[in-house]
Amino acid sequence: MLLTPRHELDLRIGRLQAALRDLGLDGALLHSTTSLLYFTGSAQQGHLWVPANGEPRYLVRRVLERARRECALPGIEPLTTLRALPDHLGGARRIGMELDRLPVAQFEVYRRHLPGVDAADVGPVLRRLRSVKSPWEVERIRAAARAADETYRALFAALREGMTELELSVVGEGAQRLAGAQGMIRWHAHNAFESPAMMVLAGETALAFSFADTPFGGEGLTPAAPYGASRRPIRRDEPVCVDFPTVVDGYVHDQTRTMVIGKLPRQLVEAHDTARQILDMVAREARPGATGQQLWERSVDIARRAGLEEHFMGAGNSRVRFVGHGVGLELDEWPILAPKQTTPLEAGNVIAVEPKFFFPGVGAVGLESTFLVTPDGAERLSITPEELGVKDA
Amino acid sequence: MLLTPRHELDLRIGRLQAALRDLGLDGALLHSTTSLLYFTGSAQQGHLWVPANGEPRYLVRRVLERARRECALPGIEPLTTLRALPDHLGGARRIGMELDRLPVAQFEVYRRHLPGVDAADVGPVLRRLRSVKSPWEVERIRAAARAADETYRALFAALREGMTELELSVVGEGAQRLAGAQGMIRWHAHNAFESPAMMVLAGETALAFSFADTPFGGEGLTPAAPYGASRRPIRRDEPVCVDFPTVVDGYVHDQTRTMVIGKLPRQLVEAHDTARQILDMVAREARPGATGQQLWERSVDIARRAGLEEHFMGAGNSRVRFVGHGVGLELDEWPILAPKQTTPLEAGNVIAVEPKFFFPGVGAVGLESTFLVTPDGAERLSITPEELGVKDA
Repeated sequence: MLLTPRHELDLRIGRLQAALRDLGLDGALLHSTTSLLYFTGSAQQGHLWVPANGEPRYLVRRVLERARRECALPGIEPLTTLRALPDHLGGARRIGMELDRLPVAQFEVYRRHLPGVDAADVGPVLRRLRSVKSPWEVERIRAAARAADETYRALFAALREGMTELELSVVGEGAQRLAGAQGMIRWHAHNAFESPAMMVLAGETALAFSFADTPFGGEGLTPAAPYGASRRPIRRDEPVCVDFPTVVDGYVHDQTRTMVIGKLPRQLVEAHDTARQILDMVAREARPGATGQQLWERSVDIARRAGLEEHFMGAGNSRVRFVGHGVGLELDEWPILAPKQTTPLEAGNVIAVEPKFFFPGVGAVGLESTFLVTPDGAERLSITPEELGVKDA
Repeated sequence: MLLTPRHELDLRIGRLQAALRDLGLDGALLHSTTSLLYFTGSAQQGHLWVPANGEPRYLVRRVLERARRECALPGIEPLTTLRALPDHLGGARRIGMELDRLPVAQFEVYRRHLPGVDAADVGPVLRRLRSVKSPWEVERIRAAARAADETYRALFAALREGMTELELSVVGEGAQRLAGAQGMIRWHAHNAFESPAMMVLAGETALAFSFADTPFGGEGLTPAAPYGASRRPIRRDEPVCVDFPTVVDGYVHDQTRTMVIGKLPRQLVEAHDTARQILDMVAREARPGATGQQLWERSVDIARRAGLEEHFMGAGNSRVRFVGHGVGLELDEWPILAPKQTTPLEAGNVIAVEPKFFFPGVGAVGLESTFLVTPDGAERLSITPEELGVKDA
């Protein structure tokens, strides 16, 4: 089983400590699974106390032995009651907590156990730190890209007329797991952001928009999980979109491809080419200093010049206003390629770019590949060719 | 697609309004997917405003048209900015919110938009209301029980020596989806409570405890998702436990069965019989007025009389102190069969009871079935026989 190396954890903790000192905080008390994984390499339940200076302590509620096997850091101790928490904080008065995740009622419990301690929200700081990937992290996303490619091959091989979206989805879900996918996806956003690891959307079901702020929703099987595959049969000569975040060893790779049995209408083929042009533009222009807003505007320009602006990224009032998002331990990381995103990109950002075009009554076509921002432009981490997957009818 | 009928929603909202009046609240502003589903039948993103008296309003951010198709209530309106929220609250001063779920940082945003409004936590009230199921809800859980039975049959049919836990898990995950499972499970607990829909644990991997407060963890594929199936091959003459919450149309049915290729050691067979005796006890004794604590104590008694107390519900310091939990729209509902649970059960509670016995170095055996509490005792909603699944080697 792959463990996160000690030097990787030390690097991450060092960057957090520098940020804490900049903010004038005495330390950070982290609790989310994502943060525990990022800074300790283990998801075992508990808290990580990172003082602004000195050694961090991983205070484990459950399971201590497993945390000790999984985490390369020293300083792993049991903590089974919050009453003992103050003993570990070394008199800190101003601490960072993940207030963008922690429920109000649970925060009140911490306040009772930490009288006189002020808490500031370090959620955005953590998201900024995680948005720049180390070479080790990039290797993880490359591994997920290979698993995604295996998954796509299995989907393309299984595609046949008359099978349902659900049947094809099950093939893809199985292939993805056997290729090493961990079987769950983490989001940062609270609530209303759930998604299956596999979206199979045939023809007009790609226009069944739903609650998450994503271009694809899907009919799903029930209003209780209103997304992903339905029991609609797949027909010839219609686009079949597959969008499947693939998570291996914690790290998300995101990919969309469009397939067809037979042949697509000319306008959809042109839209697919336009999606590819947008990815090529990103490959050239997504480099340090460019902004998410610029890349969004350039994408809209390309869609407009192709006469496809009204089909871009949704339809009606269900259009989304972004064309890409960071990926890492979570599916919705920074940076975002969207209006008002004026923070310059940095080398080491990893972004999933997903230009998609929607045609009411017909379906959608699009692509999504995952890129690494480098000084020379964006390198594709995705390895599946960005081609329409055409199968004989 | 199955929609929640209007009379069902009216009943639920009526019960909530009575509770709000008892608490002296002017209304409740609900935002979680679970609450939206429970009171509107739709998961589309937004808020539900339930005044203590009068008609509720479903204020939809995304997707309005879909919410209108899925929700049988009138009063569905768009709300795309929180700035417009006060217009809908009719001058309410004391409102209930889901403070057991809402992150601190997001709560601050509401406070800015609702000056002069006090918020109280109605999370526990909502959990109490949802703990008593209507006949319509019980039918949903029966449907999920049928899908679980199909899933178990597929698992038993596919089981063979030398296949990995992961390979068997993939068979089960696929069968579960094709039987109608929605592909995701909702938890109430914040963080560190994730789980796959399918746990396959062979031999000693059943003793790989992990971060969630559940008896089964599993090795999983990575510390980043430390649960569920691993790549360990399944051998003859060892217990193979399958634990698979099956969620159909929003409702969870929870089930565990134990299988073996060949033959189990005598002590494990006896432990399996003891697990069945505990389920039989629950069937007789879980009725209105009994408490979760009593049923926990009776379960421990049965384990003790069989000489198995030290094997019950875990091992070492990873033992859990409960033997059952409510299920419904979430996997971790009320009531809980555990120490200190002194609230009497009510007719309409639905509980998953999961006696499990752990043998270090060997493996675990156990059962889990889902029951409906009635005045005459608990009715099994699970239909798969509570037998050891024995396959010829």
